[in-house]
Amino acid sequence: MKAMKSMKDLFMHELGDLYHAENQLLKTLPRISERVSSEELKSALKEHTEETKEHVHRLEECFKQMGEKTSAHECQAMQGIIAEAEEILAQEEDGELIDAALIGAAQKVEHYEIAGYGTVTEWAKTMGQNEVARILGQTLSEEEKADGLLTKLARGGINQGAIKQ
Amino acid sequence: MKAMKSMKDLFMHELGDLYHAENQLLKTLPRISERVSSEELKSALKEHTEETKEHVHRLEECFKQMGEKTSAHECQAMQGIIAEAEEILAQEEDGELIDAALIGAAQKVEHYEIAGYGTVTEWAKTMGQNEVARILGQTLSEEEKADGLLTKLARGGINQGAIKQ
Repeated sequence: MKAMKSMKDLFMHELGDLYHAENQLLKTLPRISERVSSEELKSALKEHTEETKEHVHRLEECFKQMGEKTSAHECQAMQGIIAEAEEILAQEEDGELIDAALIGAAQKVEHYEIAGYGTVTEWAKTMGQNEVARILGQTLSEEEKADGLLTKLARGGINQGAIKQ
Repeated sequence: MKAMKSMKDLFMHELGDLYHAENQLLKTLPRISERVSSEELKSALKEHTEETKEHVHRLEECFKQMGEKTSAHECQAMQGIIAEAEEILAQEEDGELIDAALIGAAQKVEHYEIAGYGTVTEWAKTMGQNEVARILGQTLSEEEKADGLLTKLARGGINQGAIKQ
């Protein structure tokens, strides 16, 4: 991390962290959606993969609005979260047990992003960058919605199915 | 990760992950609270360090209630989140700019825990482990409260102070 001298420095660094995180996620999410058994969960994950592509474009737009080149910073946290998801993907079991475990892993992804987008949205507002705050707030709201849907699917039958395995 | 054959396997693994995460956090939180300038933030972080000690004890109680020995699983995600916080701790700047950055890092910690405790609380309920679910739900609610307080402090003056630096 270079020296942080201003809120804009912090903001650009965090934007680069989220850009790296979203791009890592784009490689893993399709493999998670292929691995799950529940059709509802598969469809939710596929839809969120499409949203994630849009989140990457939105981050590029934010770099542009800030007058900076798009630049990724290695996001070690997301690497750790994805490494844990990989351990589940490598399991031999199938069915709702693995679905329940992958919902848990996906909610860690969502919550990492909720924290990150929550922070950059507030910082953009503080800097008076209202259009950037609006774009980031839109992604924040989609991450929150995705997290809520995962909870609903877990409670709506997948956890009950998993315990019968 | 060993082979996951049942929801109890998933649950014990996740409990071990949270146990490792909380113990890592106990080493870092006091250094974050020493580093911040805002007295309100310092006091909130100190209080949350005390809560974190209690969260560790509660996890030990959950292992006991489940008839298992306490066992930690290396939590790579929390290691990544803490590595990012360390980069901020190593900055030369001081004051509200660093406070704002550390609030962002601490909210990533809180959201990781909200996701983890949210998952294990649901799994405990599904397994009919109501007392374990109650204990874990108590910690979940404290993590959510800590996250909300950090947002309030950021909005309540720290972000505004940071932008003036």
